[in-house]
Amino acid sequence: MFDEMWGAIERLGRDGRTGGYLRDAWSSADLELREWFRQEAARRGLDVREDRNGNLWAWWGDPSGRPGVVTGSHLDSVRQGGAFDGPLGIVSAFAALDVLAARGFEPGRPLGIACFTDEEGARFGVPCMGSRLLTGVLDPDRARGLTDDEGDSMAEVLRRAGRDPAVLGRDPETLGHVGVFVELHVEQGRELVHTGDPVGVASAIWPHGRWRFDFHGQANHAGTTRLADRDDPTLPFARTVLHARELAERAGVVATFGKLRVSPGNANAVPGLVSAWLDARGGDEGAVRALVAELTAFSGAEVSTESWTPVVDFDAVLRDRLAAVAGAALARPAAAPALPTGAGHDAGILAAAGVPSAMVFVRNPTGISHSPEEHAEESDCRLGVTALAAVLEDLCRS
Amino acid sequence: MFDEMWGAIERLGRDGRTGGYLRDAWSSADLELREWFRQEAARRGLDVREDRNGNLWAWWGDPSGRPGVVTGSHLDSVRQGGAFDGPLGIVSAFAALDVLAARGFEPGRPLGIACFTDEEGARFGVPCMGSRLLTGVLDPDRARGLTDDEGDSMAEVLRRAGRDPAVLGRDPETLGHVGVFVELHVEQGRELVHTGDPVGVASAIWPHGRWRFDFHGQANHAGTTRLADRDDPTLPFARTVLHARELAERAGVVATFGKLRVSPGNANAVPGLVSAWLDARGGDEGAVRALVAELTAFSGAEVSTESWTPVVDFDAVLRDRLAAVAGAALARPAAAPALPTGAGHDAGILAAAGVPSAMVFVRNPTGISHSPEEHAEESDCRLGVTALAAVLEDLCRS
Repeated sequence: MFDEMWGAIERLGRDGRTGGYLRDAWSSADLELREWFRQEAARRGLDVREDRNGNLWAWWGDPSGRPGVVTGSHLDSVRQGGAFDGPLGIVSAFAALDVLAARGFEPGRPLGIACFTDEEGARFGVPCMGSRLLTGVLDPDRARGLTDDEGDSMAEVLRRAGRDPAVLGRDPETLGHVGVFVELHVEQGRELVHTGDPVGVASAIWPHGRWRFDFHGQANHAGTTRLADRDDPTLPFARTVLHARELAERAGVVATFGKLRVSPGNANAVPGLVSAWLDARGGDEGAVRALVAELTAFSGAEVSTESWTPVVDFDAVLRDRLAAVAGAALARPAAAPALPTGAGHDAGILAAAGVPSAMVFVRNPTGISHSPEEHAEESDCRLGVTALAAVLEDLCRS
Repeated sequence: MFDEMWGAIERLGRDGRTGGYLRDAWSSADLELREWFRQEAARRGLDVREDRNGNLWAWWGDPSGRPGVVTGSHLDSVRQGGAFDGPLGIVSAFAALDVLAARGFEPGRPLGIACFTDEEGARFGVPCMGSRLLTGVLDPDRARGLTDDEGDSMAEVLRRAGRDPAVLGRDPETLGHVGVFVELHVEQGRELVHTGDPVGVASAIWPHGRWRFDFHGQANHAGTTRLADRDDPTLPFARTVLHARELAERAGVVATFGKLRVSPGNANAVPGLVSAWLDARGGDEGAVRALVAELTAFSGAEVSTESWTPVVDFDAVLRDRLAAVAGAALARPAAAPALPTGAGHDAGILAAAGVPSAMVFVRNPTGISHSPEEHAEESDCRLGVTALAAVLEDLCRS
């Protein structure tokens, strides 16, 4: 079943030239993946619901009586991303249910699989869209008004996908069905390579944010405008890129300009505007905020905050329990190691909203993620399923 | 007629938000502009032909017997460009013919208006596409294989526009109809502001070229990849932008990175590739070439030449004759001044191919071009028409 599931989705949204995935939220690839999710759930007799914010929930048992144990992740991708970031958590969730069902296990409380919408924020710029709307930390008016690269608002895109943008927003009823949430995810670093473990658990998610830097200049002809007469925004932008790296090294945090827009973007024109998105994260919230403040002052750009997520410390009791159960299920000499991560996840949004949440990481031999080269060994993925099944079984007993 | 012509085209391809123009070659706006050209020609009883490379020719008299006097320019635009770059030359050409016709002038030799295809190269990256193909300096196989931002080849785009890409290429018969070519153009600098003249003529076009710099790195997660583990191509790119400016200042040339592509372009991913297009020009060919060589070595990027146009010195006898006729027609105390320009033009391509060619510039009060703020005063535009009519009349007598 595990191989079959991978086989069914591995070609959806894949760029044949690069091997990377293009699975923007509400794209045709995303819609096909959502349909695949519904079919996998139906095949297992699970009840599937889509909530007001587009998140999918497949239930074994009825969560309206007692909050359930939920696992899952997301199916959308960053542009040119890898196969594992997101889908590994969904495929492993179905596979873990299969393990439990094959064992004759009957869950003592409802058991659910969640597929969160637009976790990566590749299309509209705000990551964890589905869980942020669900928990009410993102204003639905702001969400509806966000635009993609085509200039289409999220409201228009949702309508085109047959959804009603008017119903977006906080959904306490749906959230109330989640008694505990466990997200399995490929590791996006090499800690597990260093510790020699196939799986680990999350201790914390670093505080992280995204800022838009608009460098304004004067568009002009690239051939006829003397250097002295230019107001070329690529120069302060370039200095800001280099300064961001210096500041990040000094502060022990990470800072990245991964997305740029140059306007008008003609080879024969001095640009009038460079927009650049800064992603900054680190273990120390004060250090991240200080970097952004210093870089804003240095850049001379018009800077706006697109998102900010404070540190998330996962519930330590739950984390230790998961680590112990996972370690035992894999017959390891000790509990699975606990690691902090610089990556944002829906589990972090739920944890911040007060839902007991945890994460299981599967080893990534290169540490590379958000790239077609992202990888996890099949044997490690299978151990992840074994660990997840044990964790779900344990949580269903409580 | 002059106002009517502007009124007919001013809205075509205009971005309502910015006021800039989006008139890529073979876009719907471009096709509408071409249709407008045909109608203006038909209204004046001119015979319109489209050549194998998509250039339009409107003839007063039959050029198959004796080569004619041709004026004209282009109708496509850089992205977010101004209203004048290109269209001013076409509108002024029709208006100049109207002036001559109203005067009862009968041309002693064929008189033509040319509209060259894809002068700006905004879509496929190679400027002066129509005149380069016509004169045979661009390999039609290379042209057919060029791709736009959507990944569509020029061959596909032409087929979609109902053209046959197989017939592209050198066209000595069409070129043989051009005895002399005069392009009227808005100035893209402020020399005429300094000299106090409404019109001038071109002395030379600076040597200029376009190079693609590919900075290769390793795409990775922006949150989880330690700085020390990154191979982030934005850093050498930023250093190269700043170094280009230093080298250009030192060499007295201009160098611009006006077009960028960042891949994958996710805010939460370290890019794997930054592609940046360098435009470099200057009075001294050796200095431009030395800058590109030094910058290539400095950058560490994979560099390919997209276009290179050596210096074009316009025919001095023709230039002086135009300057004298234009000065006299405007009742100026002296001949129109002769200026070199850093901008490429179809007139330069024709001159390099051995066609006697010249240019008439109309004053630009701010010098700004390739921007919505590009401007020329209406009174100066009308003086441009007067000068052009006089020049065409004079050339038709020879």
